[in-house]
Amino acid sequence: MKLIRFGEPGRERPGVLLHDGTRIDVSAAVRDYDEAFLGGTGVHDLERWLATNANSAPRIAPTTRLGPPIARPSKILCIGLNYADHARETGAAIPAEPVLFAKATTALSGPNDPVKIPRGGTKLDYEVELAVIIGKTARYVPLENALEHVAGFALHNDYSERAFQLEHGGQWVKGKSCDTFAPLGPFLATQDEVQDFRRLRLWLNVNGQKRQDSNTDQMVFDVPQIVAYCSRFMTLLPGDVISTGTPPGVGLGFNPPNYLNEGDVVDCGIDGLGSAQQRVVRESDG
Amino acid sequence: MKLIRFGEPGRERPGVLLHDGTRIDVSAAVRDYDEAFLGGTGVHDLERWLATNANSAPRIAPTTRLGPPIARPSKILCIGLNYADHARETGAAIPAEPVLFAKATTALSGPNDPVKIPRGGTKLDYEVELAVIIGKTARYVPLENALEHVAGFALHNDYSERAFQLEHGGQWVKGKSCDTFAPLGPFLATQDEVQDFRRLRLWLNVNGQKRQDSNTDQMVFDVPQIVAYCSRFMTLLPGDVISTGTPPGVGLGFNPPNYLNEGDVVDCGIDGLGSAQQRVVRESDG
Repeated sequence: MKLIRFGEPGRERPGVLLHDGTRIDVSAAVRDYDEAFLGGTGVHDLERWLATNANSAPRIAPTTRLGPPIARPSKILCIGLNYADHARETGAAIPAEPVLFAKATTALSGPNDPVKIPRGGTKLDYEVELAVIIGKTARYVPLENALEHVAGFALHNDYSERAFQLEHGGQWVKGKSCDTFAPLGPFLATQDEVQDFRRLRLWLNVNGQKRQDSNTDQMVFDVPQIVAYCSRFMTLLPGDVISTGTPPGVGLGFNPPNYLNEGDVVDCGIDGLGSAQQRVVRESDG
Repeated sequence: MKLIRFGEPGRERPGVLLHDGTRIDVSAAVRDYDEAFLGGTGVHDLERWLATNANSAPRIAPTTRLGPPIARPSKILCIGLNYADHARETGAAIPAEPVLFAKATTALSGPNDPVKIPRGGTKLDYEVELAVIIGKTARYVPLENALEHVAGFALHNDYSERAFQLEHGGQWVKGKSCDTFAPLGPFLATQDEVQDFRRLRLWLNVNGQKRQDSNTDQMVFDVPQIVAYCSRFMTLLPGDVISTGTPPGVGLGFNPPNYLNEGDVVDCGIDGLGSAQQRVVRESDG
């Protein structure tokens, strides 16, 4: 299944993107795509409900905004420097074990919502990434069982404010957590929808010009390794997001760096996980 | 008011600690101390309810476990190196601006719950801290309005696994987020309960021996500065926790370092915010 959420920010309702491209409202069957839904029998129950109700369920208007495909999770973890080429472009060594950092869940936004340059921000950067959504509580999970804990996958653009991240002391969370810095979606694809998560092309354009174009086969640590690894350090809950790192081509990697400006349009996509578009706006001074 | 939560882990109910030391069950009036409660009129409504119902409300048995005094928040932020003396003991310079890091909210536990050495952990360390709990959504908050966004304060022991934090590459979140690494409470004291948050003694003992004994007047950045600062980088939601840093005396600061072992008993407290005790256990290999 391809799970979507639609409607006004903070008031999204659950829907499903059918294989023929129709988007249907399933709020008659599901309250929200949250920890209880993903960690329980929600996916299974919804599949059964769809078998008899998909044809009669209300259609979602094509102009309706999409939200992130999951309700606010307990955490968003990201993996740094997980594509060998990207590590090289930033001048960092290929890590011996996954580099983890956290992103505030308040950064979540819809896949096509504008991304906001925060006040004082001067170095907005993009990172197209494959996001893993946890489907079953994970703690000390062995590698061979890791995939059982994955609900599915989604497209994620892990935005950063590089000055906030790297020039204000301390940890990266400062530059990763601004509102709108985690557009997720258009949909959460359950595992069965994804042919081979180890071989997905992912790309990103700025104003129509290619900036990132790689494949998940370039990952240093793959999805099962990442899930198992993260679960050594903390409990992963259903709905938690792990973004698995970005390939080469980010603005920070150019010489001189090439950051985003107001009015720029960022398009990105991953094979089988759809595409998304964020326009760059400047947060008002309020 | 002094807000408490009591009962089994994950099934806590809300209560209040009255000034005479009586603990009462207020679940007839409040669903939980969560974002909706803290960000709305919950505190005010509960005060009114208590005026007529405190005497007749059910009493909580003295042996009943306390949970963290708030439901799982959207985020836990912590400030690093915020006591000048602590920065010196770790060999770090006094930071020019607050050092932020994130702690997974799954680390939250009750004030007197055992703290677990995670599998593979060898360097468990304590940090007694004053935690601020947000009461009103905060984004780009000016310094002079920062306190309006604070619901109250609580005692927090910011546990770390120093090897996970410092010897596995990347960011501190890895060593800060294990289950039980954020015992909070015994209670959330609303602002009016705290005489002067700029002058609170805080202390921590290991097996009855003093390890930390300082005062919040030693902070490099004070509470309003911290709230205003964090709100420049992300949106703070009601219930969010900002832990304001620890004074000297942590295990990492000894030469050689002096970490916690299975069976150790950690006691800590802050003036006006009560005390807590965590026994160190080893997570089963289970």
